[in-house]
Parts: sequence; C-alpha cells; structure tokens
Amino acid sequence: MSRTRLEAFSDGVFAVAITLLALDLAVAGPGHGPLLRQLADHWPSFVAYLISFSTIGIIWVNHHALIADLAVVDRALLYLNLVLLLFVVVIPFATATMAEYLTLGGQDARVAMALYAAALAGLGLSFGGIFEWTLRPGRRQRPVPERARWTARLRFGIGSILYLAAIPVAFLSPPVALTVIGAVAVYYIFERTPALGPRADDQRE
Amino acid sequence: MSRTRLEAFSDGVFAVAITLLALDLAVAGPGHGPLLRQLADHWPSFVAYLISFSTIGIIWVNHHALIADLAVVDRALLYLNLVLLLFVVVIPFATATMAEYLTLGGQDARVAMALYAAALAGLGLSFGGIFEWTLRPGRRQRPVPERARWTARLRFGIGSILYLAAIPVAFLSPPVALTVIGAVAVYYIFERTPALGPRADDQRE
Amino acid sequence: MSRTRLEAFSDGVFAVAITLLALDLAVAGPGHGPLLRQLADHWPSFVAYLISFSTIGIIWVNHHALIADLAVVDRALLYLNLVLLLFVVVIPFATATMAEYLTLGGQDARVAMALYAAALAGLGLSFGGIFEWTLRPGRRQRPVPERARWTARLRFGIGSILYLAAIPVAFLSPPVALTVIGAVAVYYIFERTPALGPRADDQRE
Amino acid sequence: MSRTRLEAFSDGVFAVAITLLALDLAVAGPGHGPLLRQLADHWPSFVAYLISFSTIGIIWVNHHALIADLAVVDRALLYLNLVLLLFVVVIPFATATMAEYLTLGGQDARVAMALYAAALAGLGLSFGGIFEWTLRPGRRQRPVPERARWTARLRFGIGSILYLAAIPVAFLSPPVALTVIGAVAVYYIFERTPALGPRADDQRE
Repeated sequence: MSRTRLEAFSDGVFAVAITLLALDLAVAGPGHGPLLRQLADHWPSFVAYLISFSTIGIIWVNHHALIADLAVVDRALLYLNLVLLLFVVVIPFATATMAEYLTLGGQDARVAMALYAAALAGLGLSFGGIFEWTLRPGRRQRPVPERARWTARLRFGIGSILYLAAIPVAFLSPPVALTVIGAVAVYYIFERTPALGPRADDQRE
Repeated sequence: MSRTRLEAFSDGVFAVAITLLALDLAVAGPGHGPLLRQLADHWPSFVAYLISFSTIGIIWVNHHALIADLAVVDRALLYLNLVLLLFVVVIPFATATMAEYLTLGGQDARVAMALYAAALAGLGLSFGGIFEWTLRPGRRQRPVPERARWTARLRFGIGSILYLAAIPVAFLSPPVALTVIGAVAVYYIFERTPALGPRADDQRE
Repeated sequence: MSRTRLEAFSDGVFAVAITLLALDLAVAGPGHGPLLRQLADHWPSFVAYLISFSTIGIIWVNHHALIADLAVVDRALLYLNLVLLLFVVVIPFATATMAEYLTLGGQDARVAMALYAAALAGLGLSFGGIFEWTLRPGRRQRPVPERARWTARLRFGIGSILYLAAIPVAFLSPPVALTVIGAVAVYYIFERTPALGPRADDQRE
Repeated sequence: MSRTRLEAFSDGVFAVAITLLALDLAVAGPGHGPLLRQLADHWPSFVAYLISFSTIGIIWVNHHALIADLAVVDRALLYLNLVLLLFVVVIPFATATMAEYLTLGGQDARVAMALYAAALAGLGLSFGGIFEWTLRPGRRQRPVPERARWTARLRFGIGSILYLAAIPVAFLSPPVALTVIGAVAVYYIFERTPALGPRADDQRE
C-alpha cells in the first residue's frame, strides 16, 4: 500500500466526519419557539462542535506528521489506522449525544459526557498505537532518537491520559469533564515541543 | 505538511459541504399537499442552494489560487485553514436555517438571515487571514508586488465587508440582505482583476 | 488550477453524491408492517437508486476522459465544471422525490418524474458545455479531428436530448419516461464509438 | 483512465460509506428513557457498526492490493469497479436495517439478516469479478503464477461463499448468520497467505 493512498483514504474519512459534525447544529425549525431562543438553548451543540472540530483537526495535522516520514507501510499499520478511523467516525455520534444531554443534567448528562470522553480516549489511544508502531526500527525515514521518543510519547500521551481521566470525572461533574476535554484541544493547538526532530510540518516544499 | 495533503483534505471538506447543501432541498413528501405547490413554496431553499453552492465553489476556486503558489506550509497555516473549513462546514446549517425562516417574516426571518450573513462573513474573514499569511516574506514562490497587494486585499476583502454589512441589513430587511449576498457571488464569478500576477488558474499544464 | 485538483474536487463531489443516493433506500422501520412488504413496496427506490447510480457513474467515467486530455485549465472551465457538479449534487434529491411519488400516480407522480428528467437534462447539458469548451483550439493535448467532433457531439448529446424529451413524456406517462431514462444509462454503458481518437480510458499506464 | 483517479474516486466512496455507517449509532434522544438503557438496547447497532466497518475496511485494503499492480485500466474494469462501489454504498442501508430488526425476532429479523448477507455477498462477488479481470494476460505488471491463482481465488472466494451461505442460514437463525459474517471479517484481518507474490502492501516506498 502506498503512503499516498493511505493518506487519501484517511483524509476522506477525516473530511466527511468533520463535516457531519455540523449536522447536529440544526435547530428544530419553525413552530418550536423564537429562533433566537432556539439557538441560545442550543449552545451545547455549538460548544461541542467547536471542541470536536478542533480535536479532529488536530488529529489530522498530527496524523500527517506521523505518516509523512514513514519508510514502510504494512498491513499492521493499515489496520491500526482503521482502528483510529473507527473512532474518528464515532466522534460525530458521541458529540451529538453529549450535546443533547448536557443541559438536561442528572445521570443522563453524566453518561453522555463519559461516552464522549471514552470516544476521544479511543481516538487518542489508537493514535498512540500508530505512533508506537512508527518507532520500531526501519519504520521511519529519520529514526527518532531515544530521548526524543519519550518526549514525543508524553506529548501524544497526555491527551489520552486526560481523556481517560475525563471518564470518571464526567460522573462527578460533566462541565468539569468538558472543560478538561476542551483544554486538551487548546493545549495541542499551541504545543510546540520539537518532539520529532526538524518538524515535518515546517519543512519547505 | 505537504501542500498536496492540505489541498486533498480541504477539497474533501469542500466537496462534502457542497453536497450536503442539497439535503435541504427535500420536500416534506406525500401527504403534505400537491408536489408542485410544495416545490413552489420551497423556493427559498432553491435560491439559498444556488447562492451557497456558488459561494463555496468560488471560495474553492480562490483557495486553490492561494495554495498553488505557496513555498512553505507551516502549522499556523494549517490552523488558519482549519478555521476556514470550520466556516465552510457551518454553511449548510446556516443555509438551511435561513431558507426555512425566510418566508415566515418577522424577527425569526431577520435572525436567520443575520446568522447566514455572519457565517459567510466568517468564511470571508478567515479566507482573508490565510491571504495575509501568504503575503509575508518567503511564503510564496512568486512574491506579490506591494501595489498588487492592496488590489488583492480589496478584491478579497470586498466580500467580507459586504457580508459584515449584511448582518445589520438583515435586521432591517432580510430580502435586501439576501440580494447583497447573492450579488457578492455574482461579482466574484465575473471579477477578473489580475491581482496576483500571472493568474495561477490560467497557466498551462 | 492544476488538472489534478480539479479532478480531486470533482471526484469528491461525485463520491459523496453517489453515496448519498443510498440514504433513500432506508425503510420506515419496525412498526410499519412486515419488512418484506416494506421492501417490496419500496421497489421504486431500488430502481431509482440503480438508474441514478449508473448515471452518475457514467458521467464520472466520461468526465475523466474529458479532463485527462486537457492542455489548459482556466477559470471558465472551473465554473462550467461547478455547474456540472451543481446538477450532480441535485441528483440524490431528484431521485428521492421521484421514487417517493412514482407509485402514487396522478399529477404528483408526473411532476416528480419531470423534475427527475430535468435534473438529468441539466447534467447532460452542462457536460455538453464542458465538452464544447474542450473543442476550442489549444484546449486539448490531442485536438479532436473535425469529423470526430460531430460523432462525439452526437455521442454526448443523445443523452441530453432524451432527458429533455423525457420531461414532456413524464406528463403523459411517468413509467415510459423512466424507461427512456434507464435506457440512456444502458446505452452509455455499452456505447463503444471511438469518438475521441485512441480511447483515453484504454491507454496503458 | 489513470489508476490514480480510479483509486481517488473509490477511496472517496469507501470513505463516505464507512463514515455514514456511524449515523445509525444515534439514539432516540431525551424523552425516550435513560440514556444508559437506550445505549444498551442499541447494542445491535454497535455490533453491526463494528462488523460493517471492518468489512469495508478490509475490502479497501484488498482493493488497493488489486489496483496497485495493474498495468492497464480499461472501461470494463471501470464498470466492474462501479458494481463493487454500488454494493459498498448499499452496506450502510443494509447494516442499519439489520441492526434495527435483529432483536425484534420473527420473520422480520430473518429477512433483515438475509438482506445484510446478500449485500455482503454482492460485495464479495463483485470484488471477485475484479480479481478475475486482473488475472487475464497483460493486465498486471507482475502476472500471477498459475498455482498462486487458485490460492488467491480461494482466499478471495471464501468470503463470498460464506456470505452466500449466510443468506439461507439467516432464515434458520439470524444470530448464527451474524456470527458467520463476523467470523469472515476476523478471518480476513488475520489471513496472511502470500497469495499474490511479494505482498504489495509490505513493499517499501
């Protein structure tokens, strides 16, 4: 399998999933009260859209950085990548469910938030699995030095740890769990650790 | 990040968003009156489809012209591009909401039209942000001469200004705001200012 | 604009539209009678899916043959191509509406079939517009000889003529119009006129 | 038709279909009982999602292996590929219908499972058709030796045979049929027969 086609298929799934996120923004329509009130009551959907869009966007940016440097693409990687995509595809469902139940409070809001955190944890862990695969000898065009590996593992792993932590937190307080999840997105947008040598994404064409 | 993958992912999002626009054309179906009347009453959806399809199409054409000449793709550009895509993805939602409320009149029609104008303003402004990024030294293969910059800024900025203006106009008269928005699409289709030197999109292969 | 990105975006739209066609296959679900009866009553959706899938598939195959040989991609072509895609995107809506109303008979069935034929005529005519554009001097890598042009025009035009004819026919008899539309798809699948010199799609890599 | 565009279009359809699978995960929403119970009652959708996602993923992996080695792409292959995609696109519909009716039992559950098995059998058989096409002289860059052909035919054919067998089995016992279908996915994930010479997907870049 060429790297190109792995990227093309993954980009397609990322693109469709990120676009489907917006389907949940739709309000109930005429006959359900003033539009302004409907939009205002709908705020969890907008917040959820922003967080999930950012998260999938970040995963896409980092996915590229991982793939761009590969020297080999084997069947194990293809299946690891499919596991990642399986969670990408689940995100619109988990996002919509979380947004629908968030303001209802009670046990349902807790379950919905835990489901959302679990989907994101699955995303983070499967991304980590691909990263570990790329660390094996001969897999990358430029091997990652031993010390840089741990920096990178921490860098990629911190998200998964926080997503996993957000699952029990969701049962104590859904808003706190959502704040943690949103903070992870903000962290990755501004994170600048040069973890993998010269940054693949800053290179000139 | 290679320019190629940035384009592939963006094209995927553009393609999905532009196709989802048509989902809103669906009529209520059998049992809701004669089909011809349903289609006729549904005219705002068809007008909205035409305007939004054209607008996303134009952004796609110009997006290419911007990206094709880049000498460097860095993380800042990736995130600017994600902001643009965030608004692209919101367009089908804003279009559907506007079309649903337009003929109802009253405050709801005004809010729906202002929402639509705001989504388009977000699209225009984030496009402008990417354009400003490409003007910095070293970012383009062929730098844009100082004088041409202002022509190009005006060319790209006129849309954003009119979209922003359409927000307050929507509260005075939704149809006038819609006319302004439609006029912007027509303007960009026929606009031929050679703003960026030899037009990237007229070049031979 | 490179040919590559024109193809990538068009392929994306074709792929999403062709996949959305299947959304209309969904039956009403539990509580609406035996599944077997629901599926049987739903036969117009399956027929419509087959015809529309084939039609979009054929347009995609021929779209490639047109694009593959281009020497130049200009802004006019981009907008002609957007008009084609505008009709591609409309096909799932027109297909679903036609399938829903076909077995109800009466005026609604006629309107729905005419709408379907009109959408396909728009598809055929915009494809013909792109073809005419490619015939102008310098547009193709291998110019089409004068005599072959008329063969090709006939080849591409026969579909549009039959789709246009199907619009009034739909008001006389929706099933006859549907048969004509289905026959066009069958014709293009087996049509082998070597209209454009050595067939682009038979070439070796 | 270049191999590249055949791949791009197919990848687009695979990507959209695999993402649409997740639309069926949505629960009924607030007012339909505790979320946890809704999710629990919804288990067939999750199982169906896993199986269908894996199956489309496997077909995508093997589709690449088939296409990557082609020396020629002709019109017959394009139409064979469209038949394959026709079934890919049907999978989300068949999956959703199966999941909805599975736990209801009775004749409807049997019909729904048979429909699912039939869609998968169509997928397997059309894939087998493409494989046979590639075996003809001159079609591949590296011809498949006579003995390896039968190994490969068996390898690709076992899925189709089991899917076909699952159709009558569905009328005896839907759960058994589902188990057979799930087992096929597991088989293909771990199957390692070097059927087509040096594995295309293990090659270095």
